[in-house]
Amino acid sequence: MSRRIRIALDAMGGDKAPDMVLKGANIARERHPEVEFILYGREEQCAPILAALPKLAAVTKIIHAEEIVSNDMKPSIAMRTLKKSSMRLSIDAVSKQEADCIVSAGNTGALMATAKFVLGTIQGVDRPAIASFFPTEHGECVMLDLGANLECDADNLVQFAVLGEVFARTALGMVKPRVGLLNVGSEEQKGHEEIREAAAQLRAAQLPIEFSGFIEGNDIAAGVADVVVTDGFTGNVALKTAEGTAKMVASFIKEAIQSSFMAKIGYIFSRAAFQKLRARMDPRRYNGAVLLGLDGVVVKSHGGTDAIGFAAAIGVAVEMVKHGFLSTVRSEFEILSKHLKKTPESAELAAVQ
Amino acid sequence: MSRRIRIALDAMGGDKAPDMVLKGANIARERHPEVEFILYGREEQCAPILAALPKLAAVTKIIHAEEIVSNDMKPSIAMRTLKKSSMRLSIDAVSKQEADCIVSAGNTGALMATAKFVLGTIQGVDRPAIASFFPTEHGECVMLDLGANLECDADNLVQFAVLGEVFARTALGMVKPRVGLLNVGSEEQKGHEEIREAAAQLRAAQLPIEFSGFIEGNDIAAGVADVVVTDGFTGNVALKTAEGTAKMVASFIKEAIQSSFMAKIGYIFSRAAFQKLRARMDPRRYNGAVLLGLDGVVVKSHGGTDAIGFAAAIGVAVEMVKHGFLSTVRSEFEILSKHLKKTPESAELAAVQ
Repeated sequence: MSRRIRIALDAMGGDKAPDMVLKGANIARERHPEVEFILYGREEQCAPILAALPKLAAVTKIIHAEEIVSNDMKPSIAMRTLKKSSMRLSIDAVSKQEADCIVSAGNTGALMATAKFVLGTIQGVDRPAIASFFPTEHGECVMLDLGANLECDADNLVQFAVLGEVFARTALGMVKPRVGLLNVGSEEQKGHEEIREAAAQLRAAQLPIEFSGFIEGNDIAAGVADVVVTDGFTGNVALKTAEGTAKMVASFIKEAIQSSFMAKIGYIFSRAAFQKLRARMDPRRYNGAVLLGLDGVVVKSHGGTDAIGFAAAIGVAVEMVKHGFLSTVRSEFEILSKHLKKTPESAELAAVQ
Repeated sequence: MSRRIRIALDAMGGDKAPDMVLKGANIARERHPEVEFILYGREEQCAPILAALPKLAAVTKIIHAEEIVSNDMKPSIAMRTLKKSSMRLSIDAVSKQEADCIVSAGNTGALMATAKFVLGTIQGVDRPAIASFFPTEHGECVMLDLGANLECDADNLVQFAVLGEVFARTALGMVKPRVGLLNVGSEEQKGHEEIREAAAQLRAAQLPIEFSGFIEGNDIAAGVADVVVTDGFTGNVALKTAEGTAKMVASFIKEAIQSSFMAKIGYIFSRAAFQKLRARMDPRRYNGAVLLGLDGVVVKSHGGTDAIGFAAAIGVAVEMVKHGFLSTVRSEFEILSKHLKKTPESAELAAVQ
């Protein structure tokens, strides 16, 4: 029997915690029989819920955590003052190698700050990034950074490209993901300094990465790239703009359907098709932002999600552990650092030859 | 009889020019009986089309322009070398006060560079911006900059806010447009330096502007602000991401409708409702990006548009002229400059009192 995957859960993070955390874990347990859970949170709240889920209870232990990081708490304050919070203890578990990964639906900023402090970053990564994935016309794509780093230099963007590419390969099972840099045009001279420099580095680096060059905003949903690399400000705006637009179109469709008696009859016939459409775009399917670049697997579930969404986030963590996300990233960054160090020498050699 | 509105048209700009330009002008003429046109372009191409449109011919004169600015031409080259192009001559007409505004579907960069060179900017405007408007859940909103200025400081953003607000009032007839600064969160401490400084200036300035503070990407389509202010990089990515997402959702709906016999029957009943939905989101309705901050009314139509889209772009120019966009902007910038100059003094006075 292969080794079990041990998942640390922040039982108290999220609007509907701890109920949705435990019910989400129960769904994930069915999908991934190889998992076991360590649940950090208020025992008096978690124990009764767990008692009602005997199959989950068989693979789960609760470790009491008195403190809770609230959503409006400043990340630095949470990190410095709450050393016994459910969030902190679940991250500590990864650091102590008692768990292979951690999933939390709590305060994103606090999770990033605490995880960075406790786990550190992978050698070669200057700053960790937040990544997520969502549907495109031809499947799905990963985008990063989504807000951890508002301003990024060329090195940051190159590192994000590596992190996102390995995530797409290991967690999403993509074979040769195409990496695109988000820009305002596809021509080489477009965009600002940092982005052009990042493109030049990605073209020059001898990484096993399929770099597609610059892509534009409309290329994201068109599925032109599998990994979309950008700074945290632009990524955050693009992600939320896409969400807002999808919601607006959905509300337009709803209005159209309700606009006439005939349209309502039409909907009765089309209902099954529309339900399939809704399932395809269900945000719960795409729940689970990942904190990439940390020396540990950290998955952030949306705070407002339900058990189904939380189970999807656990699923992302399981895939990352199962397919060796961390070890693959480490070896990619070794190649990158060797290459970047060798660049001046190689250039000289090339000039001599 | 009130004065006629004289519109200079770049007859050679756009994929389907000059045919769609003339046909678009003919549609606009029906909608706006007060307009007359000066058409700059190759006479041998334009004259036969105009001859077939006698009502348009009655209010239009053709002025021959031998040169054409191609789409792939570098803006600086077009500006410096093609001084007899249809684009340049139509902009010159505004400068010479032979026309009240100019509409072109040609090369955006060349249009911006040439218009800036020929017309200059309004006193108080450091850099002109590209603005456009599109549907939201509750109506429509204006966004700027969409790509003219990739990096913007606080002053630029404040100026864009004024320009966009006056555009929303004069061209779109909004009574008290709410202005929002695009950011990664709505709290005051969010975002980078420039954006926080711009927010502080907008709060402090004694402008007759309704400033709603920071908004996020999803707020755009939700219609939380009527004017969305951002730098050209972010604005360009957000606009194109929204377009791409709307297109993706539309293609998902099409697939859903075609996915089963029942759904197809449903569509027969719902067809009228879906056609109304399509009309509501028709990009041609929202055709017409405006170059704001120039000392003249310059409207850019999408290069790939047809006559209906081009007529909409002409309509935007007509509204701007009719409702005194330029004079309103000039007086707003006078208030702004007085206020900004007075700030240190007023602060001193306040300290003394």
